[in-house]
Amino acid sequence: MHDVIGLIGRRVRLGLVGGGPGSIIGETHRIAARLDGLIDIVAAASSSDPERSLRFAPLIGVAADRAYGSWREMMAAEARRPDRIDAVAVMTPNDSHADICLAALDAGLHVICDKPLTHDLASSRAVAARVMEKDAELCVTYCYIGYPMVRQARDMVRAGEIGTIRQVHLQYIQSHLAEHQLPGTWRMDPARSGGSLVLLDIGTHTLHLGAYVTGLDVTSLSADVGSAIPGRTVDDYVSALLRYENGARGSMWVTQAAAGAEHGLSFRIHGDKGGLEWYQEDPNRLIHRRLKDFERVITRRTSAPASPNAQRSSRIAMGHPEGYFEAFANLYAEFAESVARRIAGKPPAEGDDLMPRVSDGVKGLAFVEAATRSGKSGRWESVERA
Amino acid sequence: MHDVIGLIGRRVRLGLVGGGPGSIIGETHRIAARLDGLIDIVAAASSSDPERSLRFAPLIGVAADRAYGSWREMMAAEARRPDRIDAVAVMTPNDSHADICLAALDAGLHVICDKPLTHDLASSRAVAARVMEKDAELCVTYCYIGYPMVRQARDMVRAGEIGTIRQVHLQYIQSHLAEHQLPGTWRMDPARSGGSLVLLDIGTHTLHLGAYVTGLDVTSLSADVGSAIPGRTVDDYVSALLRYENGARGSMWVTQAAAGAEHGLSFRIHGDKGGLEWYQEDPNRLIHRRLKDFERVITRRTSAPASPNAQRSSRIAMGHPEGYFEAFANLYAEFAESVARRIAGKPPAEGDDLMPRVSDGVKGLAFVEAATRSGKSGRWESVERA
Amino acid sequence: MHDVIGLIGRRVRLGLVGGGPGSIIGETHRIAARLDGLIDIVAAASSSDPERSLRFAPLIGVAADRAYGSWREMMAAEARRPDRIDAVAVMTPNDSHADICLAALDAGLHVICDKPLTHDLASSRAVAARVMEKDAELCVTYCYIGYPMVRQARDMVRAGEIGTIRQVHLQYIQSHLAEHQLPGTWRMDPARSGGSLVLLDIGTHTLHLGAYVTGLDVTSLSADVGSAIPGRTVDDYVSALLRYENGARGSMWVTQAAAGAEHGLSFRIHGDKGGLEWYQEDPNRLIHRRLKDFERVITRRTSAPASPNAQRSSRIAMGHPEGYFEAFANLYAEFAESVARRIAGKPPAEGDDLMPRVSDGVKGLAFVEAATRSGKSGRWESVERA
Amino acid sequence: MHDVIGLIGRRVRLGLVGGGPGSIIGETHRIAARLDGLIDIVAAASSSDPERSLRFAPLIGVAADRAYGSWREMMAAEARRPDRIDAVAVMTPNDSHADICLAALDAGLHVICDKPLTHDLASSRAVAARVMEKDAELCVTYCYIGYPMVRQARDMVRAGEIGTIRQVHLQYIQSHLAEHQLPGTWRMDPARSGGSLVLLDIGTHTLHLGAYVTGLDVTSLSADVGSAIPGRTVDDYVSALLRYENGARGSMWVTQAAAGAEHGLSFRIHGDKGGLEWYQEDPNRLIHRRLKDFERVITRRTSAPASPNAQRSSRIAMGHPEGYFEAFANLYAEFAESVARRIAGKPPAEGDDLMPRVSDGVKGLAFVEAATRSGKSGRWESVERA
Repeated sequence: MHDVIGLIGRRVRLGLVGGGPGSIIGETHRIAARLDGLIDIVAAASSSDPERSLRFAPLIGVAADRAYGSWREMMAAEARRPDRIDAVAVMTPNDSHADICLAALDAGLHVICDKPLTHDLASSRAVAARVMEKDAELCVTYCYIGYPMVRQARDMVRAGEIGTIRQVHLQYIQSHLAEHQLPGTWRMDPARSGGSLVLLDIGTHTLHLGAYVTGLDVTSLSADVGSAIPGRTVDDYVSALLRYENGARGSMWVTQAAAGAEHGLSFRIHGDKGGLEWYQEDPNRLIHRRLKDFERVITRRTSAPASPNAQRSSRIAMGHPEGYFEAFANLYAEFAESVARRIAGKPPAEGDDLMPRVSDGVKGLAFVEAATRSGKSGRWESVERA
Repeated sequence: MHDVIGLIGRRVRLGLVGGGPGSIIGETHRIAARLDGLIDIVAAASSSDPERSLRFAPLIGVAADRAYGSWREMMAAEARRPDRIDAVAVMTPNDSHADICLAALDAGLHVICDKPLTHDLASSRAVAARVMEKDAELCVTYCYIGYPMVRQARDMVRAGEIGTIRQVHLQYIQSHLAEHQLPGTWRMDPARSGGSLVLLDIGTHTLHLGAYVTGLDVTSLSADVGSAIPGRTVDDYVSALLRYENGARGSMWVTQAAAGAEHGLSFRIHGDKGGLEWYQEDPNRLIHRRLKDFERVITRRTSAPASPNAQRSSRIAMGHPEGYFEAFANLYAEFAESVARRIAGKPPAEGDDLMPRVSDGVKGLAFVEAATRSGKSGRWESVERA
Repeated sequence: MHDVIGLIGRRVRLGLVGGGPGSIIGETHRIAARLDGLIDIVAAASSSDPERSLRFAPLIGVAADRAYGSWREMMAAEARRPDRIDAVAVMTPNDSHADICLAALDAGLHVICDKPLTHDLASSRAVAARVMEKDAELCVTYCYIGYPMVRQARDMVRAGEIGTIRQVHLQYIQSHLAEHQLPGTWRMDPARSGGSLVLLDIGTHTLHLGAYVTGLDVTSLSADVGSAIPGRTVDDYVSALLRYENGARGSMWVTQAAAGAEHGLSFRIHGDKGGLEWYQEDPNRLIHRRLKDFERVITRRTSAPASPNAQRSSRIAMGHPEGYFEAFANLYAEFAESVARRIAGKPPAEGDDLMPRVSDGVKGLAFVEAATRSGKSGRWESVERA
Repeated sequence: MHDVIGLIGRRVRLGLVGGGPGSIIGETHRIAARLDGLIDIVAAASSSDPERSLRFAPLIGVAADRAYGSWREMMAAEARRPDRIDAVAVMTPNDSHADICLAALDAGLHVICDKPLTHDLASSRAVAARVMEKDAELCVTYCYIGYPMVRQARDMVRAGEIGTIRQVHLQYIQSHLAEHQLPGTWRMDPARSGGSLVLLDIGTHTLHLGAYVTGLDVTSLSADVGSAIPGRTVDDYVSALLRYENGARGSMWVTQAAAGAEHGLSFRIHGDKGGLEWYQEDPNRLIHRRLKDFERVITRRTSAPASPNAQRSSRIAMGHPEGYFEAFANLYAEFAESVARRIAGKPPAEGDDLMPRVSDGVKGLAFVEAATRSGKSGRWESVERA
């Protein structure tokens, strides 16, 4: 679906920062990078512990001479190689993203970075400025917008199939912080994860999903931010009333502490001609409610073609489910082709730009800060522009 | 399931107020009243137009001598009959409920009244006071809590099966006001329907559903109230952040203007041990999410018995769906038995009291007024106690 | 939806045969008969035990002077009353249906009879001949075809929306005979229930559902008939390969011994333009698969009207679920109007005849006998014509 | 999840046979082979047209010196390389499988072969004999049994959670041959695809799915085989009554000509304690019906662990859907580890052997031949043993 080898005669060469032994997000990035055969993972500084980093590299197929003890070492050493990496993938704790991204950009590397872009709005703006200055590619892995049916929804909104957007409802309901005893990871340490765990971790995904599908930004909000578990000091719950730039009303319910939930990311959006509804746990179906006709269930099939961007984002059709890794891999494929086009001196691919970019990352942090303010003031607050 | 004939040797005799030709809610009340064979509809003043009232009565099986031109006439004439009605069913526009209920109570009649109880908090409190004074039965037809699986959820919450309630999310998503051109009924006239159409019409149902299942009242809220359709003067949208009496957080999304929606009343409630989820459009299934086990789908079946109140509320089991009319009929059956017990001089039935009572009606109006205030102030507001 | 009072100035008067204390099907018939206010249940011989019959009558609202000790007594006594019953409802064990139906027809009564029509093909043909001779109404309560979405499917097939029928798949999966210890009712006694329990009890429903929707009869079949439980002597399982009169291929899987099942009656039918799929456990949705477009989910709604016969079969719309009792009540309403038209000397109602008639009952028995033969021969067998 | 690099210090080296430009199954095999980073695709003879083969190789990342014009050439040339391939993946038309597999086995290569194993029973037995003789690994890509929830079902059956298997129902409902005009591929030519298109193409998948989950083989059957489209000469429909080796009854409905269907592969299996139900279009949920408790919906989650083999077959948990490619990749990962263990001289991995083997391939052809015989005879036929 995406071309890299035809453009540059080889795969894109990627170096990993973070995602060491036992990291789920690390294995996810690697599967996503490998899946379409557009990228070779050739270098890695996968742990903040140099020994662990060096031991882990061969297990993920990285040659010994390109296993590094730190990301700084990797950037320096790779710069001297003729077959040096084209890009880095960043999957470290939130508070390190800004430094790594800035250094990578300065080293002439393109960047694919896990969300949130950084841990606060100021640093995210600094990264955005550097991306512009260096004219580099930076993809933020808001991975859920890689699902074909999310893109189908976006295409349908753009084509006016549900009319002017009037109501947006977003949910992200998880369970893993539902117990009183918390897992002792860096996420539970506010100093490492940033101000509000739930807002940074999944609130940013949720906001982006709504914006991606509707093409609209939230301009103000009234939020209830805190914990569903009495006595807990990190935030695990946010519910918010939203106002979108076109006047549409919205709301969201986002929590990591709903006992028994799984991974309930969803949207339900109504325009003046109909509505669209999607659930991440059942991602291959898009429900299309219509004012003057029966509900449709949109899936990828041959005889009733999905929208152009849904088709571009699918590897197979007719009832073969694609899942989380394919969604994530779509961002990697789009990033790889964008990088290859720059290497080849070619203009961006034709068609819509589907990849989440640095400005989407900055908007996430602006939302986090506005919601935090509103949670304290009990009033509506404006969201700063990216 | 409910006994009336055994108590009083006959069915309860009911007079109808409202629900004339073409009224959907009128036909619904009549079906619900007939379904279990506990009630005879023997008198009717079904329209505010006396001629229509008289013409309609025989079509619904009411004898000519008990067809009345107005509810005042019916109450007066019935009082003189030896076989007089025991109760009235009120299904008229909101602003007439208070007068009819007060007059009926004064006439020694029991009352089953459509929701909202009245059109404002003050009048609803007046009705509540009169109910207490007259020691009468008054049922508010919050019909959705008649579904067996709603009662199953309530029983499970009471039995502690999902632990202490932490999060409540409620939705009521309808489509019938999604078009710019509005139907010209009394509902569209704020003077007749009361202050806020959406809050009175379906907001009260939504609030009650959450309270019925959790056993908790909302004590404060922050609401976004208005219209999803630019330029419309009646409210068709409310989204609110809620705080329950035990500190649990909640939210609701309630609208009559979601193009393409049907009748999306639902709840999703999480306690610290699990969650419960129910959709009115698929009412025979209750989803039970558990912290330490797989999801269960609770239905009525023989070999795995439903909870006592779910069983009491079902007429058949094992996969035969019951629907809206059976839910509505449950309130009529409970009302009929309560009335029969009073006639027979018997104490209330053993077991839980499942019928929505006048205090539930008053709480609905207190919620409407608090949400209206918050919509204007942009702040959290307290909900007055019933 | 149906008119009776307008035709004859009163409700149809019904006498019950069977359905005594503890009978689930008895309560079902009574609810269905009452629901629409078109029928008065005025007489009853509800048990084969005269004492039980007499004691039970007042509890179901039948006056003491019309409580009878036997159906023969009821028919004789009612014939002498000026306000005599118009019809009887038969809900007794299978082997008594033929005698009761024949006697009722001879007494000038119309009949609504539970399925199977009788216990064997010969007796069912005798009843059909008597119906024709007496020019009476006889409805067989194949109740599942009363669901609005089944009628929607039938209308869509007739309108050619899925093209020529090519494949039919039917299921009826129940659990109540899944345990080795059987309940000791008349159904377990082959002498009372007829030859093959599963074929008579639910096989006939299944066959009729397929024929009702497709408008096609099965002409030959190859069946596997027996028990899923080793050592059991009554049949609880039949699976069959079917050939329909137009050459379409079909199959069915019908069992009462699938441990953990509920009430899984369903069809999935494909024509050369699309398919239709329906599940009795979720009866308000009809899945419409299309060759050249996305799947639609058809429900009853205002803005996208259901088919004429689906609308005629619904009491409310837009997401208020109707269930088993409403489906059953549709047959009673259609029967009541048909009877009233005969009393009024009016021709049958315009529009499609939706009620299952005696010929449908005979076809059921022809199927039972062909399947039984095939189960023994291991070959394809022809189904005799009604 | 699977180890290769730890065993042999490198990835398994794979050569492709077939799957050239435009082949969906070719891209599927490549994605599956790449996904887990256990395999390097280093050689390819991807088309029967040597020119196309050579041009295509670099586009899939195969070096020019290992792009071959034919599989015979590839096997000969690779045998001379020190870094020669360990295995071949076969994804050519059915009638070529036997020759390619035999030659590869003779060349000391391991084989992963698309289904059906070969085009007839005799040739499949010849391949099975050669596998045994050469003591090689041969995996048949019955890919659907790679889904975690299929393996969950298998583990639950083995653990006795649904008791002794009594009823098995299998479906595979596709649409792509629903139109009268057929696509002109090799599949439509009986001489290339083998005797019965539908039986070879998807009947073998269906049979294997049932056998994999239940652990039981079909011993006899009665089948209706033919076309749902009048006048078509290739089979697109088979429905069969089945008898399993333990006496359990079964049935299947398999077609490629159901207009509007997608990819409806499913099973519903009942034992004497409960049932399991799974749909390939919604593969991350397994429905568990229980005789004495409510239905459970089994998914992969952290706090309620899936079965061991479901866990081994998953890359992520808690509501992140995995799909078709991950299922397919599970077979590649199991094959890669099996091959690596042989190279390393290690015994097979501990735990259950999850990979479909040559005997499963032979059983598929035995089923095809028995069903074909029964379709002609109209009687029950025995299935030959593998």
